[in-house]
Order: sequence, then structure tokens, then C-alpha cells
Amino acid sequence: MVGGGQLARMTHEAGIPLGIRFKLLSDTPKDSAALVAGDVVVGDYRDLDTLRDFARGCDVIAFDHEHVPVEHLRALEAAGVPVRPGPAALLHAHDKGVMRERLTELGVPCPRHRIVADPADVTRFAREGAGFPVILKTVRGGYDGKGVWVVRDEAGAAEPFRAGVPVLAEEKVDFRRELAANVVRSPSGQAVAYPVVESIQVNGVCDTVIAPAPDLSPALALAAQELALKVAKELDVVGHLAVELFETTDGRILVNELAMRPHNSGHWTQDGAVTSQFANHVRAVLDLPLGDPRPRAKWTVMSNVLGGDYPDMYQAYLHCMARDPGLKIHMYGKDVKPGRKVGHVNTYGDDLADVRERARHAADYLRGTITE
Amino acid sequence: MVGGGQLARMTHEAGIPLGIRFKLLSDTPKDSAALVAGDVVVGDYRDLDTLRDFARGCDVIAFDHEHVPVEHLRALEAAGVPVRPGPAALLHAHDKGVMRERLTELGVPCPRHRIVADPADVTRFAREGAGFPVILKTVRGGYDGKGVWVVRDEAGAAEPFRAGVPVLAEEKVDFRRELAANVVRSPSGQAVAYPVVESIQVNGVCDTVIAPAPDLSPALALAAQELALKVAKELDVVGHLAVELFETTDGRILVNELAMRPHNSGHWTQDGAVTSQFANHVRAVLDLPLGDPRPRAKWTVMSNVLGGDYPDMYQAYLHCMARDPGLKIHMYGKDVKPGRKVGHVNTYGDDLADVRERARHAADYLRGTITE
Repeated sequence: MVGGGQLARMTHEAGIPLGIRFKLLSDTPKDSAALVAGDVVVGDYRDLDTLRDFARGCDVIAFDHEHVPVEHLRALEAAGVPVRPGPAALLHAHDKGVMRERLTELGVPCPRHRIVADPADVTRFAREGAGFPVILKTVRGGYDGKGVWVVRDEAGAAEPFRAGVPVLAEEKVDFRRELAANVVRSPSGQAVAYPVVESIQVNGVCDTVIAPAPDLSPALALAAQELALKVAKELDVVGHLAVELFETTDGRILVNELAMRPHNSGHWTQDGAVTSQFANHVRAVLDLPLGDPRPRAKWTVMSNVLGGDYPDMYQAYLHCMARDPGLKIHMYGKDVKPGRKVGHVNTYGDDLADVRERARHAADYLRGTITE
Repeated sequence: MVGGGQLARMTHEAGIPLGIRFKLLSDTPKDSAALVAGDVVVGDYRDLDTLRDFARGCDVIAFDHEHVPVEHLRALEAAGVPVRPGPAALLHAHDKGVMRERLTELGVPCPRHRIVADPADVTRFAREGAGFPVILKTVRGGYDGKGVWVVRDEAGAAEPFRAGVPVLAEEKVDFRRELAANVVRSPSGQAVAYPVVESIQVNGVCDTVIAPAPDLSPALALAAQELALKVAKELDVVGHLAVELFETTDGRILVNELAMRPHNSGHWTQDGAVTSQFANHVRAVLDLPLGDPRPRAKWTVMSNVLGGDYPDMYQAYLHCMARDPGLKIHMYGKDVKPGRKVGHVNTYGDDLADVRERARHAADYLRGTITE
């Protein structure tokens, strides 16, 4: 796996029971996954020779993030290395412009969008029907609210163009909430769909995920799963695909983002599903039959733990574990920096309000937001 | 953790979500746990200097097996290293003679037993009431049926005395089945009890574990849990304690063996309990509050996978995973040798016959006993 973040860490964890020999290409020996894996190469994923050397002896290459240049992936693939998902699929996760164009061709509902050339073009886009405010995104490199701007008028639209990366304009969707439809697909075409979840963002960062999404109409849930399965098939995705969706106030679903790897909206599956997204991602990239994606509990809630005031979380563990013996803590071994995702917690049970409160309390206590 | 076997491997796996920095002392770099852990020291656990060097920078030392000499553990403890469980407790897992003596003092029911000096003394032991056949065990070094003999008369009792290790004689108990009562205890005295399980042995090796033990009377289940909690407390065990029990044909329970570490009879907890034995062992040795030991399914069955004819199990994975998407495979990364424990499978569900059949089929298929 290329990239040593928490997704690689948890993929390694999920591969251990399968006897997988996990080899990691990590930026530093202190990256989240590098701390817990045995076979770690430290190197720069932007360097093709490093990637080629790393790929030797790997049966398949998978990814912790979307930042490996697509031309490098094409070179590896041309050299006979199984790259999963392949560059033809990953391009849609790397480039939001390509993603929007392709989804629209496929008839997959998206917000109004087009590539815009400059601030004046943003105004034209708004006048074509989307109206202000307009969402501007650099087509590459954004995540967790970075590389995204909400602009209210032409005067406010200058900054996104400064990076020299193409800029995608999108209408600001009037949405009721955000959902995610997560599916896993293998090279031989088997696919499984997890229950559609609700994803609650705070300051542009995922805060809480509720599985399944409460009060979601069965028809819309099915439509979201079918949409995600269609995208996975048509884009030839291998492994986990997260389709982030808006549920609009008028009852439609629109695609917000795609991620072709394990995803924050699927972390609940570690404790809440028969087979976790990480285990199924491993099975998919190795072309093994996929595991049962069904939930094991009526409700599972995931809340992210952001870095706060505690450099050492041992004291917080004492409180959280004693308060809630059913709490599932997943920390990433990262140095704590304010606002950085350093872990998450999962809770599950029959009473949604209780399950949410337990996750909320633990995440806030681990961060240091509450201390009682 | 000292020892690089599968118990260390699965303990590392369980420690990853807690952000534990896991350091391993392994006999070789190819041991089961050494293949998947990041911080591996290769060395001989029988050498005190190696242990002292290894212990530097460890907050606590725990164990994959019972083979570290007790005098080394005492030396480490005297040097201020937290050894968990400590040598005073571990002595009872190292030496079956000491264990029997102590349990008898505590009033814990055991088979008739005493240390015997020679074959003639075995006959005297039999005549004191146990009768032939008599079970002879070397007090140290046995596992999985090794170091255990069933002798029918004095003439057959010579071999156990040849090793020069004291020999314990025990009556051959007329038992209905074998049970295991697994508990976890922390240094501060918190303890949790898992449901009592039935353990089915084949050729002296654990084959299948059923959780909870079917048709076990609630009174006997409670007695078994109380017995295990008492033993853990009185022997000052820290971490997981497995108490292997005989359920006699006349409805009593007698202690067979003790193990003070995660144990084969607790592997079902990885997929069948809220908190696995490995996660609770980690929590206990770090003196963190313990997790909920309750089952997540009506029935969970574990079957061991023994080495068979397949050096490469990929083809067997294709069949087993396709046949049963809910199957949980746990392989240890070991080279396959006939009869060696190389992994286990867990299955769970509401119908015990079905859950058993799924585990049986998968274990047999992975071994190569069946190929349809």
C-alpha cells in the first residue's frame, strides 16, 4: 500500500487475520501505518523510481490516498504491476472536473457544474441558473474542506484561480443532509453495498456518521446504493468506493464527491458490520470473494476524534473505558495537533439517541473538549 | 510482548486501535507476530541479558507463552520492570505441581493428584483410590497433549520419568465434556468473565470451541465463572486467565489446566464478543478499564485450522469466502506443517447446527481434508 496514513494502518490491521503480507511505502517512519507494520519502505510516492522499486515483489498495489500522480500509475500498470484501483478509475478521484464530466455522461445526478476560467466566468456560471453563492473547487488536491471556497460574488472569486489548477464551479445545493453510499467491487466484478449512512460535517470536516441513515426512505436508500454500484462498475473501480451524496430538500440525491479507497464514512463498519470496509478492500484488491456487508447492530455511530489539548490520551482512556465498556476506540498513533484527525470511536446499540450520546461524549472527552 | 507466536500476533492486532506501541521479542524474524509487527527484537527469551535489554523502554512486559524461566521474571521484577502477570502468578502456569497444590489449598475442585516418584509410586497412587488408567504429566513444558501420558499399569509408566522433570499423577476423570471459563483481571482488581465455553479436543489438541457451552446448567456456568474469578484473584493473575475444566458425568466441574495469557478457548471472542480476549488482555496489562465481555451473537463457533496439504491457501480462500460471506478467517502466517495450528475460523449465528457446520467445513477445506 502506498501512503502511511490511518487508512493504511487500519488496512494492515484488517489484513493480519487473512495472513496478508503487507508492505508499506511511507513518507516517514513515524507515519500512522509505519508505526505498526513490519515491512516498511520510506520513500517519496511522487518519484517513479521509488514506486517501481517498491512494487517489486508486490502482488498488487493499493493506496492510502489519491496523491500518486496518475502518469506514474499508468507507468506501473504498463510495466505489468497490478494497480488497484487502476489509473483509469483513479483519475476520477484525482480530478473533480473529469469526475463531473463522466458522471454526467452516465446520467448520474450531480449539482450543476462546469469548469470556469476566471472570476467573470463564475458570474456567467451563476447567471446560467446556479445563482450565487457558488462553490469553487480546485479540480485536484482538495480534502476536508481544503481547496473549496464558497463565493458570494465575482469579487470574492479571485483566490481559487491563484493556484494555477483548473477550477470547477458548482451550484450550492440546498440539501437536507449529507449521505454516503459505500460499495466494494472486485476485479472480477463482484460488488457489495453497505447500508447508506448519514454523514454530519462540522467546519467542513466529517464529525459523525450514523449507520444506517435515520429516516431515509427505502426508495432513496436503494437509489443511492444502485447509483454507487453503477459508478463502481462504469468507472471500473476496484476496492472500496465512497460516494458522498447530498440529500436535497426536495428529496433527490446528488453526488458530492468520490473516494476510491477506505473512507471515513465507512469506519463504522469496523465494529458495526459483519465485514469491515478495510477487510473488504483487502479482499477486493486481491480479487478474493467479498465479505458480508450487513450491519451487526441496529445502529452504529462513528465520531471522529480531533486533536485537542491532550498530548497523552492515557488519562482520557481511563475515563472513557470505565464509563462505557462497549466503547470501541480507534486511535491512529499520530502526534496530536489541534484539529487533526487522530482517531475515531464507534458505538452501537438499539437506541440511537443513546448510541449517539456515547460516541459524542467519548470523542469530546478524548479531545479534551469536556473533562467532567 | 515476549514470544512471537500467534497469540502475540493477535495481541498486536488488538492493540493497534488503542494506539499501543507494541514491541516484540521474537525467536526469529519469521515468527507469526514478527511478520506483522513494526518493532521486533530477535533474541532468546531464555537469556536474562536479552530480556533486560528488551525491557528497556517498555511500560510493561507481557507474554505469548509460559516458557520464560520464572527466575528471569523475578529478576526483571526486582529491577522494577512491570511483569504482567507477575512471576508469583505465572509460577502456577509453569508448574502443574505448584498449581495443583495451590488450587487444592484454595478449595478449588481438582482431579485426585499427587507428585509421584517412580512407576511403583504410580501404582500406589492408583491404589489410593484413583485406579488405573492414571494420567501422568511432567510438571513443566507440556502443551497440546505433549508431556502427557495415559498409563494403564506400572509397566507402562516408565517413560514420563526419563526427562528428569517431576511427574504429577492425576486420576483419569470420567468427564462428559471439557469446558473453559475465561476471565480477565487488571492489576487494580477489576475482572470480567466471558461466557463459559465447550472445548472439543481431537487427539489431545483443541479442535472446536462452542460459545456459550450448549445445555450447560446456569448453576454450573455460574460456578465455573466464580471459580475462575477466584483463581484469578487468589493467584493475583493479571490479564487473561483460561481455566480448562472437566464437566464430570456426575455433574461437577474439576480444573484441568490453567493458562495465564490469551488462549485458544477464547479465540471466538474476536468475532463473537463485544471485546475480544486480546483487547481485554492489552487493557488489563496496561491497567486500563476492561471492556464488555458479553457475546454479540447467540452462538459463536471457533474451529482450528491445522496444517495439511496446501502450502498456499489462496485457492482455499476462494472457495471458503465464496461459500460463506460471513466466515471469519484468522491465519497466523506460519509455514504449513501437517498437524500444526496455522489458523482458526470463527462463525456465528442463531442456529447452532448451521454455525458448527460452517466452521467445520471451512476448517476442513482450508486444511485440505475436503475439496468439494
